[in-house]
Amino acid sequence: MPSYTPPLRDMEFVLHDLLQVETLDIPGYAELDRDTTRAILGEAGRLASEVLAPLNPVGDREGCRLENGVVRTPQGFREAYERMRDGGWMGLDADPAYGGQGMPYLMNCATGEMFVSANMAFNMYQGLTHGAYSALHAHGTEDQKATYLPKMIDGAWSGTMNLTEPHCGTDLGLIRTRAEPQQDGSYRLTGQKIWISGGEHDLAENIIHLVLAKIPGGPEGTRGISLFLVPKYLVNPDGSLGDRNAVTCGGLEEKMGIHGNATCVMNYDGATGWLVGETHKGLKAMFTMMNEARIGVGLQGLAQAAVAYENALGFARERLQGRSVTGAKHPGGPADPIIVHPDVRRGLMDQKAFVEGGRAFALWAAHMIDRGHLAGDVGAQGLISLLTPVVKGFLTDRGFESCVAAQQTLGGSGFTRDWGVEQFVRDARITMIYEGTNGIQALDLVGRKLASDGGAHAMAFFALVKAWCQEAKSDPEIDADFAQPLKQASKELQQAAAYFMAQAPRSPDAALAGAHDFLHMTGHVCLGLMWGRMAQAAKTALAAGATDPGFYEAKIATGRYYMARHLPLVATHLRRIESGVEPVMALDAAAF
Amino acid sequence: MPSYTPPLRDMEFVLHDLLQVETLDIPGYAELDRDTTRAILGEAGRLASEVLAPLNPVGDREGCRLENGVVRTPQGFREAYERMRDGGWMGLDADPAYGGQGMPYLMNCATGEMFVSANMAFNMYQGLTHGAYSALHAHGTEDQKATYLPKMIDGAWSGTMNLTEPHCGTDLGLIRTRAEPQQDGSYRLTGQKIWISGGEHDLAENIIHLVLAKIPGGPEGTRGISLFLVPKYLVNPDGSLGDRNAVTCGGLEEKMGIHGNATCVMNYDGATGWLVGETHKGLKAMFTMMNEARIGVGLQGLAQAAVAYENALGFARERLQGRSVTGAKHPGGPADPIIVHPDVRRGLMDQKAFVEGGRAFALWAAHMIDRGHLAGDVGAQGLISLLTPVVKGFLTDRGFESCVAAQQTLGGSGFTRDWGVEQFVRDARITMIYEGTNGIQALDLVGRKLASDGGAHAMAFFALVKAWCQEAKSDPEIDADFAQPLKQASKELQQAAAYFMAQAPRSPDAALAGAHDFLHMTGHVCLGLMWGRMAQAAKTALAAGATDPGFYEAKIATGRYYMARHLPLVATHLRRIESGVEPVMALDAAAF
Repeated sequence: MPSYTPPLRDMEFVLHDLLQVETLDIPGYAELDRDTTRAILGEAGRLASEVLAPLNPVGDREGCRLENGVVRTPQGFREAYERMRDGGWMGLDADPAYGGQGMPYLMNCATGEMFVSANMAFNMYQGLTHGAYSALHAHGTEDQKATYLPKMIDGAWSGTMNLTEPHCGTDLGLIRTRAEPQQDGSYRLTGQKIWISGGEHDLAENIIHLVLAKIPGGPEGTRGISLFLVPKYLVNPDGSLGDRNAVTCGGLEEKMGIHGNATCVMNYDGATGWLVGETHKGLKAMFTMMNEARIGVGLQGLAQAAVAYENALGFARERLQGRSVTGAKHPGGPADPIIVHPDVRRGLMDQKAFVEGGRAFALWAAHMIDRGHLAGDVGAQGLISLLTPVVKGFLTDRGFESCVAAQQTLGGSGFTRDWGVEQFVRDARITMIYEGTNGIQALDLVGRKLASDGGAHAMAFFALVKAWCQEAKSDPEIDADFAQPLKQASKELQQAAAYFMAQAPRSPDAALAGAHDFLHMTGHVCLGLMWGRMAQAAKTALAAGATDPGFYEAKIATGRYYMARHLPLVATHLRRIESGVEPVMALDAAAF
Repeated sequence: MPSYTPPLRDMEFVLHDLLQVETLDIPGYAELDRDTTRAILGEAGRLASEVLAPLNPVGDREGCRLENGVVRTPQGFREAYERMRDGGWMGLDADPAYGGQGMPYLMNCATGEMFVSANMAFNMYQGLTHGAYSALHAHGTEDQKATYLPKMIDGAWSGTMNLTEPHCGTDLGLIRTRAEPQQDGSYRLTGQKIWISGGEHDLAENIIHLVLAKIPGGPEGTRGISLFLVPKYLVNPDGSLGDRNAVTCGGLEEKMGIHGNATCVMNYDGATGWLVGETHKGLKAMFTMMNEARIGVGLQGLAQAAVAYENALGFARERLQGRSVTGAKHPGGPADPIIVHPDVRRGLMDQKAFVEGGRAFALWAAHMIDRGHLAGDVGAQGLISLLTPVVKGFLTDRGFESCVAAQQTLGGSGFTRDWGVEQFVRDARITMIYEGTNGIQALDLVGRKLASDGGAHAMAFFALVKAWCQEAKSDPEIDADFAQPLKQASKELQQAAAYFMAQAPRSPDAALAGAHDFLHMTGHVCLGLMWGRMAQAAKTALAAGATDPGFYEAKIATGRYYMARHLPLVATHLRRIESGVEPVMALDAAAF
């Protein structure tokens, strides 16, 4: 059975040494002193490690069952869900006007990482509820908000997002689900949705589906899509549950992982729904939920990598095989622990450098959202809009890779069920796919975000990197090991952007063919920036006489590893991009 | 359900255009004209696609069951096994003196790729039998060979390899299984072996275990290991089956994939066995089996990538989503097939370039084995000894990655069971681990093979690459697109080797810390060489007026893609290696 130890020390470092949250002029941040964050994270971590983690292999083994239209979640999930509700975790950052605790989103992400590391499939039930809450909060009527939000914040009711249909996923313009307006202002929804996470289950009293559908007579394609709220049970004026709505689960998907989460076929057979936001503007409203979900999915990639790394490290410290080439490290034992071997060490350092860098990046991104949302910082909004596909795409591509590396550290044990690391690999795999495949993230970055507002957000990002590199010059060590390689990588990234611009007039395909590489370049520059700033923060703490110097020294060493062994990939990605669109598109589709 | 179409056209290209097998002066090769290979491969392909492939999801779903000490394989496996026996496929390249067909090993690998693509878990039963056959053929006594080989070649009896114990895998010096000499020349074996593929099953009448064990009083460590033959049923002097031996299956491992293959805990409770080869020289004898198995595992990585690619391609041609950015390609339909999108195309080209390059590399390697084994070419023996870890490590690391890329092409469908691609990912995952993890392959390459015979094999490899680059100069197109980048990559590879040598005196860890990168550099140079030679062969065929020019033009275009977008990774690996051992080993084990 795998272990899970919440990374409290490292989160404290990110929140207080790196981001210095309590010093920032963002509503709610002043209260985030070390004692407060330690209390919150400690409590969440306990729930994660003691309640959720033990249920992770159970959920994987049992999966969900559909019996007479009712989905049974794995044993123990209901009790755990109640514990989550009791702790108020589902409404941690929700609007106090509807019963939420009003904490910054940052804290939701920090606690969320732990919940996901402990049990990703379980946490998806509440994760999607949170997304539905946000969409409704941003686009719902006052009545809708008053009716639904308190119950969703409390976890009594859960939420879903319904986009995909059998013949359309990415291309939502093809949606066939119809919504017919009724005399009373409601709509009747008819159609089938697939791959609906938590579409049906036994954890909550009601399920609030947010559904994309077309109102007959509207514009073709994505401009004719509207968003609807369709509850499983209709809600009476007094808030009590009324009739069962005509929305049912038609089947469960068998899949590679996240077995504890019900992936449902949902049939809408004249179900009653209500418009959310404006007619035909459904995609925009859904994107409130989607953008949040994308940050959440990036966090899932990181969280799986984090728990996989913990288990790989534990194994590497205990498994005795062979001797260190520089002389036995444990001469008294039959062999040395495998962590002494350079290639095992390489695998662990790859994981550690990604996990800690990725954690900083994810929390920094969450902090940017707070900056935009709570403090009205337009620059931060632009920056996070630019980087959302990077958080999603990079943290999940690399997070999966990191899980695979962890599995490799365990050798044969990594392939067996007992050790549990193979489950992290299988669960992490979906993160590269859902909420828009990583190919779609790359297109979003290159095709939309890069040029939006005349490229202002991209320029702001480059300026941010440059400013830090400039500032870092005062410390020759940080300058040499971090700022100089980062400067080079950032230059290469700009060169890639310039290449796209130069190619655009005669080859609109060029940017698209290089999009994946560009997303990864950007991700590396982001993690490089995080590592530079973390190394700097670690040196500051050491100079101030930190009581645990080993922690900070390890931070600097891990950062150096990232700069020396991960950042050079940026140059390769540039070479790929500059090899042009021709090699990618040379073959006719029939010639494959 | 996934599809499988044998890659007959591509194999024909590798055998006849690239390797030009029928022109080579190797015993048995003269008979390999196009008609003969086409007949053999066509027959194997039919068996693979019609019999084995449909059982692949069945095996995955049902797995194996242990009932009262007997392992039941999935439904249909027994019938399929009989079909394999009837076709004589198990003894295709085996010694005619014992009933084999005496074909070159090359043909065994070509047919093997198809069997593995169709059903990897199933094919492992006979794959390991083949390995055991080879070990016994090389090291057994005449009596042993006469008794066991004909039955193993025929498939009536199967074989296994027993190395791992609960506390030792890679470090075989720790083995505890004891073999006590008996008066009659036999041994009594006592101990437990784990992760024994096909250790017990219902496909064959008898199972011949090759077991590593220690004779009491022998030297410590790996120098005290001997190899034993331990049959499930003792064999009477007349060849009939006698008493059940004291070797039993104590349990089946639950694992991530290859569910159709029984991974067994094997208990030896005073089982009767016979020494194979010399006392205390067991590891050397087992390595005959191991080296063959490593080529076989490399082939598995490739074969899973090949079938995954086929399914990704089929999906990309049929799934309609979005429109080409350069204008609708199927304006009559609701959307274009996703193969029009550059990022989808990138994923497919990555797979295609790896699969076709990897296939050439694997068959070229098999051909080197034939050259050494059948024609006594010592240079070829040295070369394949050097490259065996590369075949295993590179083709499985990249093969797995290619399966993951195929899964990504399918989007959400790639994560669901129905489409079957997720099974290829799960099955392929083990190839990076068993028969020596890829970390061990890298150490073997860098720590042993690179310097063996004073570096003669490595120098021969570099000379081979150089000679081809020289020869390619006559064609300016091949020179510019293939030979020049390959020359550069080979130079970088030599630079890495030189770096290891320069570091060795003061830092024995340096080569080990860079071993993984070095293995991948070597793999890229090998595939680069294959692509250069394939492009050349394609041009030759085109100049000769080939009737299917499209096939050859696609070959050249795919090769260009590899050179432009995969080969640049060599430079990154070099940068990693040259960043030195310090970043890798900087942290104390306790500081992680």
